[in-house]
Amino acid sequence: MTRMRGRDFGLPFSGPTGPENAITDVPGVAVGHTTLIHGEGALRIGEGPVRTGVTAILPRQETGRPAPVWAGMHSFNGAGELTGSHFVAEYGWFLGPVCLTGTHNVGVVHKASLDWFLARHGAAMGPGFWHLPIVGETWDGFLNDSHGGHLKPEHVRDALDGARPGPVAEGAVGGGTGMSCYQFKAGIGTASRRVAAAGQWTVGALVQANFGRREEFRPFGRPWNAAGATAREEKPGEGSIIGILATDAPLLPHQLQRLARRAAVGMARTGTSGNNGSGDIFLAFSTANALPLDAERGVTPLDHLPNEQLNPVFTGAADAVEEAILNAIVAADTMIGRDGNRAEGIDHAALRAMFA
Amino acid sequence: MTRMRGRDFGLPFSGPTGPENAITDVPGVAVGHTTLIHGEGALRIGEGPVRTGVTAILPRQETGRPAPVWAGMHSFNGAGELTGSHFVAEYGWFLGPVCLTGTHNVGVVHKASLDWFLARHGAAMGPGFWHLPIVGETWDGFLNDSHGGHLKPEHVRDALDGARPGPVAEGAVGGGTGMSCYQFKAGIGTASRRVAAAGQWTVGALVQANFGRREEFRPFGRPWNAAGATAREEKPGEGSIIGILATDAPLLPHQLQRLARRAAVGMARTGTSGNNGSGDIFLAFSTANALPLDAERGVTPLDHLPNEQLNPVFTGAADAVEEAILNAIVAADTMIGRDGNRAEGIDHAALRAMFA
Amino acid sequence: MTRMRGRDFGLPFSGPTGPENAITDVPGVAVGHTTLIHGEGALRIGEGPVRTGVTAILPRQETGRPAPVWAGMHSFNGAGELTGSHFVAEYGWFLGPVCLTGTHNVGVVHKASLDWFLARHGAAMGPGFWHLPIVGETWDGFLNDSHGGHLKPEHVRDALDGARPGPVAEGAVGGGTGMSCYQFKAGIGTASRRVAAAGQWTVGALVQANFGRREEFRPFGRPWNAAGATAREEKPGEGSIIGILATDAPLLPHQLQRLARRAAVGMARTGTSGNNGSGDIFLAFSTANALPLDAERGVTPLDHLPNEQLNPVFTGAADAVEEAILNAIVAADTMIGRDGNRAEGIDHAALRAMFA
Amino acid sequence: MTRMRGRDFGLPFSGPTGPENAITDVPGVAVGHTTLIHGEGALRIGEGPVRTGVTAILPRQETGRPAPVWAGMHSFNGAGELTGSHFVAEYGWFLGPVCLTGTHNVGVVHKASLDWFLARHGAAMGPGFWHLPIVGETWDGFLNDSHGGHLKPEHVRDALDGARPGPVAEGAVGGGTGMSCYQFKAGIGTASRRVAAAGQWTVGALVQANFGRREEFRPFGRPWNAAGATAREEKPGEGSIIGILATDAPLLPHQLQRLARRAAVGMARTGTSGNNGSGDIFLAFSTANALPLDAERGVTPLDHLPNEQLNPVFTGAADAVEEAILNAIVAADTMIGRDGNRAEGIDHAALRAMFA
Repeated sequence: MTRMRGRDFGLPFSGPTGPENAITDVPGVAVGHTTLIHGEGALRIGEGPVRTGVTAILPRQETGRPAPVWAGMHSFNGAGELTGSHFVAEYGWFLGPVCLTGTHNVGVVHKASLDWFLARHGAAMGPGFWHLPIVGETWDGFLNDSHGGHLKPEHVRDALDGARPGPVAEGAVGGGTGMSCYQFKAGIGTASRRVAAAGQWTVGALVQANFGRREEFRPFGRPWNAAGATAREEKPGEGSIIGILATDAPLLPHQLQRLARRAAVGMARTGTSGNNGSGDIFLAFSTANALPLDAERGVTPLDHLPNEQLNPVFTGAADAVEEAILNAIVAADTMIGRDGNRAEGIDHAALRAMFA
Repeated sequence: MTRMRGRDFGLPFSGPTGPENAITDVPGVAVGHTTLIHGEGALRIGEGPVRTGVTAILPRQETGRPAPVWAGMHSFNGAGELTGSHFVAEYGWFLGPVCLTGTHNVGVVHKASLDWFLARHGAAMGPGFWHLPIVGETWDGFLNDSHGGHLKPEHVRDALDGARPGPVAEGAVGGGTGMSCYQFKAGIGTASRRVAAAGQWTVGALVQANFGRREEFRPFGRPWNAAGATAREEKPGEGSIIGILATDAPLLPHQLQRLARRAAVGMARTGTSGNNGSGDIFLAFSTANALPLDAERGVTPLDHLPNEQLNPVFTGAADAVEEAILNAIVAADTMIGRDGNRAEGIDHAALRAMFA
Repeated sequence: MTRMRGRDFGLPFSGPTGPENAITDVPGVAVGHTTLIHGEGALRIGEGPVRTGVTAILPRQETGRPAPVWAGMHSFNGAGELTGSHFVAEYGWFLGPVCLTGTHNVGVVHKASLDWFLARHGAAMGPGFWHLPIVGETWDGFLNDSHGGHLKPEHVRDALDGARPGPVAEGAVGGGTGMSCYQFKAGIGTASRRVAAAGQWTVGALVQANFGRREEFRPFGRPWNAAGATAREEKPGEGSIIGILATDAPLLPHQLQRLARRAAVGMARTGTSGNNGSGDIFLAFSTANALPLDAERGVTPLDHLPNEQLNPVFTGAADAVEEAILNAIVAADTMIGRDGNRAEGIDHAALRAMFA
Repeated sequence: MTRMRGRDFGLPFSGPTGPENAITDVPGVAVGHTTLIHGEGALRIGEGPVRTGVTAILPRQETGRPAPVWAGMHSFNGAGELTGSHFVAEYGWFLGPVCLTGTHNVGVVHKASLDWFLARHGAAMGPGFWHLPIVGETWDGFLNDSHGGHLKPEHVRDALDGARPGPVAEGAVGGGTGMSCYQFKAGIGTASRRVAAAGQWTVGALVQANFGRREEFRPFGRPWNAAGATAREEKPGEGSIIGILATDAPLLPHQLQRLARRAAVGMARTGTSGNNGSGDIFLAFSTANALPLDAERGVTPLDHLPNEQLNPVFTGAADAVEEAILNAIVAADTMIGRDGNRAEGIDHAALRAMFA
């Protein structure tokens, strides 16, 4: 928790944050990471080097019967994966954790997330209960032996079991371990905003940031001119960003789709136009209107915040995603991965000078 | 109201209907038609022959301040127009009437519907009030002088002012005047279902049916083999269907999108696979959760019927659309339009024999 | 290959089929199944009984460098999973096999399908190559120990390695092993159509059919009245259908979305209105315009069949899906699974009598 | 054509422009405006004051038989109207002009655009020919008597007949006459980029800019701190932006949807997060692959630029939209409209100082 964050460099963010400036400022949300870093040198598929991991977000730290969270989604550029998307679009809610990882870990994480959920709830729900996990990914193959299958079910369980409210580790941790953003070393970032919109609400964001070409990088509209090495990825820009937005504001599913679209604004503010090979997919959920699963429930009231009140919530979402991305960059140090591939951390002194 | 309906021929529809077996069985919904039929013989653009009109559906017979209805939409094959669609998708509701007409009348109806709404509500809402009318269309140019611009603003006002609850005229009336379906003369049809789903609800449908090739026609799965003339449209199948679903069940916008998708099931049951040039667009709205427009409203409870209860509502929607289409066909008599173009009414005796 | 098919019962299907009346009539398409059936009696999670499997569809039996197939998708009711959907929507194509399986096998199949693909192409493509497998699912937990994790990577490899052109096994095989449709035992079904549309083309369908309530079943519009036991699923209708459409017609991605929507017509013709908990998701691909992956390629011509020619292709798609569903039902015998749960095969004599 | 443009103030735009830095740099694209400004003082509905108009974009200055342009669309926030959207999504192309106007003029413009098209092509196409015009709108009711219906068919014809290639008037002209952006007087803006992407292409943008709250305005990431009056709109941010992207790059419909999504990036770069009541809708078209309408055409080759080449085109689209928005602002002078409502032009000296 002693890592630098964007605010330490004078980046002129707008709006008041929650206490941790993290997605966990939304009550009930918990985050856990498993980080795998070992090996050096030439790639030997199946042996390493390994630079990967998984991040788990529990939308409700559940205490009993599973309770859906209302949700909506936006795919700004869908060259990626977010499993469970059809279900979210149809039902307007999802159950259980959201996991973020490297592209080639999706299957393992999907299975392990399911097994973790069944271990907690399967007996109570019975053998007729089915579950569709939510797993998002970005590509860590520049640094990681991504054809080698190093992430195992126990790593996923550890992230899920280790999920906590409070401060969230950023940078080269969890699913973000092997990621780069604007060809700087990056990974996981988070932020939050307090918004006043016919009540006081929190909007939190967590991103796994792995997108952008260096020449696109324009934090707060300023082109990055600092000298220094660039991570020479094989296919710059062929990364992705998965962004998760959480709020306690009582939004309906179609309103959460609207919120998810604002994540693209936060991304755009950092400079990119969205690259062809980038899977820029955003999921927004609301913890309000908690109702345990109950197939027998009849007509039920739900609170909702009318459309006319949403502007501050929209701005908070864009602000939080923008800050989460920059946090993901500043928190990450230079990393050398497979075949000596090097992802340079951003030059902190240059960044500080830029915003002095 | 003495026209034949599908049930008069023994068509084996499922499920209990409302009292009028019409969209107006949903309390508050009113329907009005203006029908223009004059002239015969060779087409003289701007003079006729005229076979067109407009149908107006008021989702709430309003009594004061306008109140949105919650809504969702599905475009099965979007080769047509339903104005207001972006707004419905974004806001999850719409204000004011839905009008159905011929393709080339959309602009006139749009303007006249707006003016009618402003005449009722403009002064109270003030000059900063804006409104986006909902206008759907299908193509009546086989029978009508559709390049001639015969529908005028006063015709639209008449339909809107004449909207009533209770029985609804079907066949070659209103927006359906010049339409054909499966190359039979057709037009407007309506139907309703009573459904039990954690409460008693009504689902009503009204269609402007102008789609399908004769060889596709398979009511209740039975190929139409009766001898007899076929309306030889220039481009068979290049029609469309606009279908409106109304319900008093408290559905949220994403659930109304789901309902709208069931209209495609009702359409498919009549035989078509959906033709390339057909604009098969469906709009579903719920009159529940009535709230007058109020930009200052804060957190507000809405009733909703959980997803788990929706199956009977879905079936009712498909059933009502299927019946509305067949009603649109059986209610229409042979019509001769411009250039002697002839749309043959379905052979009632053959239909009765088929389902005897 | 001696199983009964729908045509053996006089079901009045329309249109000419390809030689095998199977998705493999589209040149280059191959199908393989792994079927797991063992154990009886009371459920012991992790031990059985086991009634599950996986079906693999290779869109191009590849002979060298991987070549995308152009694709589009439609989610009629998204209460299910089809991984890779964001990518297909964005890029308009996909690479590699499509696998169908039980809901809780998605993760294992995803990983195994990836590993199979990397084993074939990973070395040539290099460590920077990433791949997003396509995996669809329906729920087999009424018969199968679906919380027990019985499907293993080697089963997936076997299905992939065993994929062949030519006849395709139907019913309780592969991914369809534990499935029911309209509360009859069902599983995998396939069919094809030859269509003339400015050229001669084939449209093939393969479905994993696991949807519908008995009272909805209306093949060719005729209600099923036969006496006999009904599979008493815990949550009738909470199944799903994944449908895959293949064609050699040169369709562009937006046209393949249009084709995928016609699969919902084929489904609707069998009677269902689409149940709430059903994941009814359809993927259409075209094998035309084969181009190996090549990031350096510049402007390239693609053949396309103009929209105006698509009606026969649309009808062929609806017809093939309808027949594939009925084939999936008639090919499956009664199966008893976990806890003695029984899915009754359709009464062949009653079916034959109905269509005599 | 002597108006100021963004580049006159040192705004640090990226990338090379076409010769006019306008949408008309795409060969074949022509633009025309009709501007209505008359009356002052208190609003008298139907009399004025009038501050409205219409802008017409011809995608191909047609010389004979109409020829579609390939197209795609993105609704970032759909609280607005763009007629023809269902058709574009379904067919992947559209015919004829795109018109931009004030919200309450949509009906009149729709009809007049249709009549203009029929006057040119109706006789040749015959009475069975139908056409769905494309009309977009934003709200000019802060300055204009928007309930008064001042725009007439002849104004639309004038804009269409007056459409020309070459320089494009910006600011308070055409459809932009009564518009404000970030509570500055604004209106129409345009820009273009030359991009190298396996060939040389032009991407042009034209926007009708009427969105944003003053406190959101952050050109190139810099908050606007200049003193000075703010246009006190009744509902700040309840404007909209319609953005049209044109290119001669051979993009397929699904690729043009992708391009349209980049318009949201250009918008986001100017500061807004997208307000609730804003209709932010974008349409992209390609003039490549010109083929006259021909219902008999069979398999036809189309050029396409593979996805892998699209990054420069995406960046060009975002750049052009960003510049078009800022051009729409700097070109507009202070305007006083109905009831003395005042929309202040941006302070040119302050802007120049900010980017000195």
